[in-house]
Amino acid sequence: MGNTFGHLFRITTWGESHGGAVGVVVDGCPPRLALAEADIQAELDRRRPGQSRITTQRQEEDVCHILSGVFAGQTLGTPISILVWNTDAKPQHYAPFQHLYRPSHADYAYDAKYGIRNWQGGGRASARETIGRVAAGAIAKKLLREQCGTEIVAYVKQIHKIYADVDPTTVTQEQVEANIVRCPDPACAEEMIGHIEWARRQGDSLGGVVEVVARQAPAGLGVPVFDKLEADLAKALMSLPASKGFEIGSGFAGTALTGSEHNDPYEMRHGQVHTRTNNSGGIQGGISIGEPLLMRVAFKPTATIAQAQETVTDQGEAAILEAKGRHDPCVLPRAVPMVEAMVALVLADHYLRQRGQCGT
Amino acid sequence: MGNTFGHLFRITTWGESHGGAVGVVVDGCPPRLALAEADIQAELDRRRPGQSRITTQRQEEDVCHILSGVFAGQTLGTPISILVWNTDAKPQHYAPFQHLYRPSHADYAYDAKYGIRNWQGGGRASARETIGRVAAGAIAKKLLREQCGTEIVAYVKQIHKIYADVDPTTVTQEQVEANIVRCPDPACAEEMIGHIEWARRQGDSLGGVVEVVARQAPAGLGVPVFDKLEADLAKALMSLPASKGFEIGSGFAGTALTGSEHNDPYEMRHGQVHTRTNNSGGIQGGISIGEPLLMRVAFKPTATIAQAQETVTDQGEAAILEAKGRHDPCVLPRAVPMVEAMVALVLADHYLRQRGQCGT
Amino acid sequence: MGNTFGHLFRITTWGESHGGAVGVVVDGCPPRLALAEADIQAELDRRRPGQSRITTQRQEEDVCHILSGVFAGQTLGTPISILVWNTDAKPQHYAPFQHLYRPSHADYAYDAKYGIRNWQGGGRASARETIGRVAAGAIAKKLLREQCGTEIVAYVKQIHKIYADVDPTTVTQEQVEANIVRCPDPACAEEMIGHIEWARRQGDSLGGVVEVVARQAPAGLGVPVFDKLEADLAKALMSLPASKGFEIGSGFAGTALTGSEHNDPYEMRHGQVHTRTNNSGGIQGGISIGEPLLMRVAFKPTATIAQAQETVTDQGEAAILEAKGRHDPCVLPRAVPMVEAMVALVLADHYLRQRGQCGT
Amino acid sequence: MGNTFGHLFRITTWGESHGGAVGVVVDGCPPRLALAEADIQAELDRRRPGQSRITTQRQEEDVCHILSGVFAGQTLGTPISILVWNTDAKPQHYAPFQHLYRPSHADYAYDAKYGIRNWQGGGRASARETIGRVAAGAIAKKLLREQCGTEIVAYVKQIHKIYADVDPTTVTQEQVEANIVRCPDPACAEEMIGHIEWARRQGDSLGGVVEVVARQAPAGLGVPVFDKLEADLAKALMSLPASKGFEIGSGFAGTALTGSEHNDPYEMRHGQVHTRTNNSGGIQGGISIGEPLLMRVAFKPTATIAQAQETVTDQGEAAILEAKGRHDPCVLPRAVPMVEAMVALVLADHYLRQRGQCGT
Repeated sequence: MGNTFGHLFRITTWGESHGGAVGVVVDGCPPRLALAEADIQAELDRRRPGQSRITTQRQEEDVCHILSGVFAGQTLGTPISILVWNTDAKPQHYAPFQHLYRPSHADYAYDAKYGIRNWQGGGRASARETIGRVAAGAIAKKLLREQCGTEIVAYVKQIHKIYADVDPTTVTQEQVEANIVRCPDPACAEEMIGHIEWARRQGDSLGGVVEVVARQAPAGLGVPVFDKLEADLAKALMSLPASKGFEIGSGFAGTALTGSEHNDPYEMRHGQVHTRTNNSGGIQGGISIGEPLLMRVAFKPTATIAQAQETVTDQGEAAILEAKGRHDPCVLPRAVPMVEAMVALVLADHYLRQRGQCGT
Repeated sequence: MGNTFGHLFRITTWGESHGGAVGVVVDGCPPRLALAEADIQAELDRRRPGQSRITTQRQEEDVCHILSGVFAGQTLGTPISILVWNTDAKPQHYAPFQHLYRPSHADYAYDAKYGIRNWQGGGRASARETIGRVAAGAIAKKLLREQCGTEIVAYVKQIHKIYADVDPTTVTQEQVEANIVRCPDPACAEEMIGHIEWARRQGDSLGGVVEVVARQAPAGLGVPVFDKLEADLAKALMSLPASKGFEIGSGFAGTALTGSEHNDPYEMRHGQVHTRTNNSGGIQGGISIGEPLLMRVAFKPTATIAQAQETVTDQGEAAILEAKGRHDPCVLPRAVPMVEAMVALVLADHYLRQRGQCGT
Repeated sequence: MGNTFGHLFRITTWGESHGGAVGVVVDGCPPRLALAEADIQAELDRRRPGQSRITTQRQEEDVCHILSGVFAGQTLGTPISILVWNTDAKPQHYAPFQHLYRPSHADYAYDAKYGIRNWQGGGRASARETIGRVAAGAIAKKLLREQCGTEIVAYVKQIHKIYADVDPTTVTQEQVEANIVRCPDPACAEEMIGHIEWARRQGDSLGGVVEVVARQAPAGLGVPVFDKLEADLAKALMSLPASKGFEIGSGFAGTALTGSEHNDPYEMRHGQVHTRTNNSGGIQGGISIGEPLLMRVAFKPTATIAQAQETVTDQGEAAILEAKGRHDPCVLPRAVPMVEAMVALVLADHYLRQRGQCGT
Repeated sequence: MGNTFGHLFRITTWGESHGGAVGVVVDGCPPRLALAEADIQAELDRRRPGQSRITTQRQEEDVCHILSGVFAGQTLGTPISILVWNTDAKPQHYAPFQHLYRPSHADYAYDAKYGIRNWQGGGRASARETIGRVAAGAIAKKLLREQCGTEIVAYVKQIHKIYADVDPTTVTQEQVEANIVRCPDPACAEEMIGHIEWARRQGDSLGGVVEVVARQAPAGLGVPVFDKLEADLAKALMSLPASKGFEIGSGFAGTALTGSEHNDPYEMRHGQVHTRTNNSGGIQGGISIGEPLLMRVAFKPTATIAQAQETVTDQGEAAILEAKGRHDPCVLPRAVPMVEAMVALVLADHYLRQRGQCGT
C-alpha cells in the first residue's frame, strides 16, 4: 500500500524509470470538475527534465494521457487514470551499475528489502516516479482553487549557502517562474544559477531548501490526533526523493524563542479572527485556522555525481564508481512543482474529509 | 480516522484531558508476546506529570489497566485495550477560558472545525492524549527489542539556546534518565535545568530539540513511494503536540554540503555492507539499510504561559488572557518517551509489513 | 486492523468475553449530535442476554459508560469511547474445554492462527463482542434518523422451517418488539417460540433468517467498484457471528426469474423517479436509488448444544464433548439489533463518504 | 477509495467501458514471483466477450500489457500496472440511451450520486471493469499456487431452474473448461446451453449460481472481528456486477438443520485435525481451518434485454426503451473467472496479513 496516498482524494502511482510507462490513478475526485489534459500538462512541463541548462539533459517530453474518469471535459467522480510513456530511457547507461551500489542511492536498500531490483535506472526511487504526483497534484490544485480559492506557491529559498529573501504573503507564481532556478528573489537567483553551473563543472552537486505557502486554505482542515494537518504535510513532503527535513511556521528556529515571543496573539481583522504573527504556520492543534500555511523542505545534494566514489559490489567487494548518467546537479528547481503537488494533495484530501465529517 | 495510526500494528487512541479516562486500542500485535501492565507502566511513569520540579505540578499517577488482549501473561493477537482514568482533572481552572481563545492553543481551531469544543481542558489537544501513544509504544518497543534487538533512545539535544553534545551511536537510556531534563550531557543538563527554572519564574516557557536514535533496526523497513520510512517517521513525530520540525540524518544542515561531501561511501565491516558516514540517517530511498536511524524533532515553547496575553473572545471581542493553569514550562523532558514511542510504533508497523510482503 | 470497520464513520471494537471489559471507539462521528448513554443503553438492552426465556440465562446488565467524545450532551467530533464491564463471567464453566476443540466453534481456528487462545470463554468469537457494534450502531442510527430520516428495521423472518409473512415497506419496530422472538407476524411468532423451547429441551439449537429493511436511505450511497453498497452491507452482516449467507433484493430466488421478469421498471411518483418493483433491493450498480434497502441474513443453528459430540483434544486425541455452558438455543432474536447496527454503520459511513466526495 | 481492494495485496482498478482503456495497479505483491503477460492473458481469455455463441458478440481481444513492476521475468515488489486498450467500443450504440434510464442498470444511480455519467456505455458499471480484477486475480492465483499449493475452481452450479451436480472436493478446471457454459456436469451443461440460446431468441436473459471452492488454502487466514474471512469473501463477491446473494458452507439451506445436525465433528486424518463434515465451508470464527472453502454466488438475469421496457427519461417523462446493444443473455459463464479472481485476491491478501502478524 506504500504507493497510495490520501483517504478521500486518493492517488496511487506506479512505474519505474525504465519500464514502459509511469502513471497515476486518482480516486475520489469530486464529479463535474472541468478537466483537460492541458491542465495537467502545464504542471508536468514545470517538472520535466531538460527544461533548462541547470537541469538534467535527459530529454523527455512527458506527454500525459487521460485514459479514464473524464467525460465531455468534466470529471465523472470515477478513477482518473493518467499515463506518461517512457521515451528517453537509456538502460545501457546503467549497465556499469548492475552490480555496484551507488552511494546514497536506493540500490542497496532495494536489494536488502526485495532481493531484486531493476538496475536499469532508478526504479521506483527515480525522480521519474514524481510524474504521477505532479499530475495528480494538478487536479488537486484546480479543485482547491475553484472550490476554496486556495493558492499554493512554492519556490527555492536556499541553494547550498545562498539564501533568498521572499515574502510568502505576496509572492506569485509568475515571480517564481521568472527564472530557471525558480527563486523569486532575482539577484539571488542569478547567484544560485551561477553556483549550480559551477557545481556541475566540478562533477559535484548541491542541495537547498524549498519554501511553500498555501494562502486561502479553509480553516478547519486537519484531524486530531495522528492526522494533524502538519503531520500529513510532513509525510507528504518527506516522501519526496532527496528530502531530509521539514518544518512548519517557526520550525527549528522557533526553538530559540520563548513562549511569550513565540505565541501568536489573536486579533480581529475584517470581522474575522486572525493571528497577528504566524509562528504557528497557519496550523494550531493540527487544524488549519485560515492563516497562510507556511512550510520549508530541505533537499540533500543530488546523490549522482561525476566524481569517483568508493563503494562495494553486490558481492561485497570494494570498488570505485564513476557515474556517467545524465543528472541534475541540483534538484531544487524541479522540486518546486513537486512540493506544490504534495501540498495540494494533502489539502484536497482534508478538504473532502472535513466536508464528510462536518458537512462544510 | 485521524485517531488511528499504523497499518498492521495499528493503534487507536481516545480520550479528552477532562473526560472520564484516556486510552488506546492496539490492534494487530503479534500473539504470544509476554506482556504485563508493568511493561507499560514503566513508560507511562516517564511521561507522567509531576515527576520532577521542572514539569507541570499536575499530579496524576496515570495507572494503566489492560482490559483485553492479554491472557496468562501473553498477548492473544486480539486487540489490547489499555485505559488510564483521569484523576486530577480540575475543570474549574479552565472556566475563565470558556469563551477566550488561548493564543497558539487549539481552542479557536477546534471551534472553526467542529463548532464545539470541550473547554474544560485541552480536549484532544491536551498532552494527556499522548498517554495512549506511550502505552502502545511500550508494546511496540518490547516487540522490536525481543524480535529484532532494536534499541530506541531519545534525549534532549537542545533547550532554547543550550546545545548538548551527545554521541548517538553509544548513548544509553541510563545516561538519559540520569537527570530530570533527560539530557545525557551532564554539564549541559545542569544548565538546561537552571534555564527552565528561570523561565518558569518569568511566567514564560522554552522549546528545544529532541534527538532520537534507533539502533539495530532491521534493514528493509519502509516502502516506496509514499510510505517511505522517513515519511512515516516524520508524520509520527510531527503529530506530537508542539512539534514544529523534523529532520533525518544530515537534515537541514546537510543543505550546506556538496554531494561529494554528503554521500555515504559503502564499505564492508564484519562481512556486512555498511556506510562509512551516516548523513542518510540510516535510510536510503525510503528504506532502512541497517545503519542507526537518527532523527531530530523541534518543539516550540509551551503555549501556556503565565504572562498576560492579548487575544479575542469567541464573540470576536478583544480580551486579555491571564493563565492560571498548571503547565510545563518546557515540554522537552516529558517529550522524550513520547518520541521513543512514536518511533517504535512506526518501526513495529513496518517490521510486520515487511514480513507480510517479503516474508522476512 | 481486523477490529476496525468503516472509513469516515469508523469503529474499533475490543474485548474478550472473559477479560475485564468490552468496548468500542467510534471515530469520525459528526460533531454536535445530541447523545446520551440512554441512547446507547436502549439498544444494548435489546441485545443483552437473559432478556427472555428463549435467550441464554447468562445475566449481564451490560451497562454502558461513555468515557470520551461527548460534552454537555453533544458529540465533540472526537473519538467516542464506550465501555461495558464484564460482570457475569464464569471462567470455571469453560475449564473442561481448555484442551478440547468445540465443534463449529472458533477454538481450533484461533489455535491454528495465533498459537494461543483465551479458553475462558469465546474470546473475540463470543457474541459478547457484538456489544461494541450495537453501541456504535446506536449512534449511527441516531445520526441517520436525524440527518436523513432513515429508519432501519430488522426482524426474524424464519426460524428453522417456520417462515413469517412480513411487509417490509410498513413493518415497525413496535411490531417487532411486541414479542420475545422479534417476529412481527404474531401467529408465526408463537410457533417459533414454542419451537425454540422444544429445541432447548432437546439440548439442541436452531438457526434461521433475519430480514432487514432501511427506508428513506438517501440515494447516491455506495461507491463503485469494490465499495458497492451491497458489498459493504454483505461484509458487515457476514462479519456477525454465526452468519452463513447474505442476499439483497430478489437474492437467490431471483435466479429463477428471467430478465424481463426481474428488471424493475422506472416510473414517476410524487415527482420523483421510483421503481415499480424492487427486485434490486434498493441498490443498482452498487449505489442506493432511494427505494427501500432490503436484505436477508442466514444464521446457522447455535454451535453450543447440550448433546454429546465427538471431537479431538489439542493434542490430537479423540474425545467426547458435553457442554454445560449457558447459551442461546437460537441466536436469532438477539441478532435483530446486531443486524440493525451493522446496516446503520455501513449507511452512516457511506453517507459521510458521499458528502465528502460529492458535497451532498 | 471505492476502487481499491485489499490491504497488503492491494489492487486499484480504473477505466470506463468506452474511455481509452481499462486497467489495474497491483500494489504489495511479493517480490521474485515469476510473472509474464501470458500468465494474465490466459485468465483474460476466459473472461473476454465473444468467446462463444452464448456470450455477447462484442469482439474485444483484451490484450494485456504489463507496464511496470516486473523485471527480467520476476516481480519487483513494486506496483504492477496492467493495461488493456478498449478496441471495440461503439458509443453510437448507446446514443438512444443518453437521456433514458435503462431498468435495473446503474444509469439513474450514477446520476443520483454524481450528477453526471458517461452514457456511452456502462461506465464503471460495465462488465468491462472486471478486466482489472481478473488480471490481478491471475497474479494472486499464481502466488497462492506457488507458495501455498492453493487451488481455486469456480463453475456454474445453476442456470435459471437447471441445477448441476458437482463434487467440489474433486472438480477440476479442465472439467469446467470442457464446455462453453463452464458447468462440469456435462449433461446439465448441454441443457443449460440450450436454455440460454432459447432466452436469447426471446430477447430475454437468465441468471443463476456460481459455486467456487478453494482447496489447500492455509489454515489461519482471516481476522476477527470485521475482517473475518467469510466477510471479506462476501464483500469481494458481492462487489461483482449482477451479484445478489452470497453463502458459505451450508448457507441458507443450513437454517433448516438443527445444531446437532449442523455441527462439524472434529477428527484426526493423516495426523492432522479435520472436520468430518464441512457445513462450516472451511471457516470457523472467521478463520480458515484448512478444509475446502466452499461458497456460492447468485447472479441476477442480465439487465440488458431486447424486449421493450417501460422507463423514464432523465427529465422525468415516461418512455419505452428498446435496447439494441450487444450483450450476454446470461453472465454466468463469463462470471466464473471473475469469481475465482475475487476469491484469490482475498486469500492472497489474508495470506500476507497472516504472515505479517503471526510470522507464518
